[in-house]
Amino acid sequence: MIHESIVTTRRKDATTHIAPMGIQVLEEHFVIAPFKPSSTLDNLRREGCAVINYTDDVRIFAGCVTGRRSWPLCKADRIEVMRLKDCLTHAEVIVEHMEENELRPRFYCRVIHESLHAPFHGYNRAQAAVLEAAILVSRLDLLPAQKIDREINYLKIAVEKTAGPREREAWSWVLAAIESFKKNQPHSST
Amino acid sequence: MIHESIVTTRRKDATTHIAPMGIQVLEEHFVIAPFKPSSTLDNLRREGCAVINYTDDVRIFAGCVTGRRSWPLCKADRIEVMRLKDCLTHAEVIVEHMEENELRPRFYCRVIHESLHAPFHGYNRAQAAVLEAAILVSRLDLLPAQKIDREINYLKIAVEKTAGPREREAWSWVLAAIESFKKNQPHSST
Repeated sequence: MIHESIVTTRRKDATTHIAPMGIQVLEEHFVIAPFKPSSTLDNLRREGCAVINYTDDVRIFAGCVTGRRSWPLCKADRIEVMRLKDCLTHAEVIVEHMEENELRPRFYCRVIHESLHAPFHGYNRAQAAVLEAAILVSRLDLLPAQKIDREINYLKIAVEKTAGPREREAWSWVLAAIESFKKNQPHSST
Repeated sequence: MIHESIVTTRRKDATTHIAPMGIQVLEEHFVIAPFKPSSTLDNLRREGCAVINYTDDVRIFAGCVTGRRSWPLCKADRIEVMRLKDCLTHAEVIVEHMEENELRPRFYCRVIHESLHAPFHGYNRAQAAVLEAAILVSRLDLLPAQKIDREINYLKIAVEKTAGPREREAWSWVLAAIESFKKNQPHSST
């Protein structure tokens, strides 16, 4: 099972790297599998720990794929990594072992501490739609234009029906990124 | 903003009615707007209170629209309504006022008590897909067959990539309900 989360890791210069990641949940471990090359990969290798932040603020997911990587942080409880200030739950993990891989090395992590900060208030269809759209944005150069348009048209129904202000803001970032991508494309077959 | 939740209400005979509902979140109130006629509507009118259960077990959403309405319950803290035993958070609400409506009367509710039971562990794309599919199932007789197939084909990608056992079980119920609906349809234009 894959849980969509925001992983924070500590850079060499002690600043914090924020990245949306799908975490694989195994019986004994959480697996973080960052792509090669990436900051999360470098930081996990060097520091051996991370925070998995569970947030319902989808602006952070949409923000990270549209160049908005500055979000309020605060200290974690047990490890030297910052966590998202506004998250519902955060888990502090240490790397127990690592599996090399050409594409995505796998870090098997153990939770050493978890803390609840705010209640989960149910699913919101617009949040799910923003998340799917953010994944689209991260893969724009791999997808046919038609598929992007079709998915956005489908996803926007849930946004129009169920979004709050945060979801609408996140959605606008995603749409702008897609528009900007399209403008910069050479005119190819349609 | 609409939050997808499971609303539990007390029937006249003191048993519990369980129904998936989109809750509208206003500044001061949660609005529950059940369709006419429905058990949730009758129960809210008579009892003036309900529990809004926030769960990440999407089997309950898929179950309720496919005839599986029996889920573990336990007592709420302050009102005479049972709540879902396995929920992340529950909110106990009382009706402050009500707006009549031909289609969906609106109950403006105030939260008198809320309790956290388990941490939110991030979004799961399969859960969102099951939720969308459950909404489809609840509207099968209103939708063209082609649209249903197209949406299911889109949603199943996230299920295949990210589901755990609960999500796969819920997904199988939804697919079976759609198959069974199709079999019982007169052969119309395709």
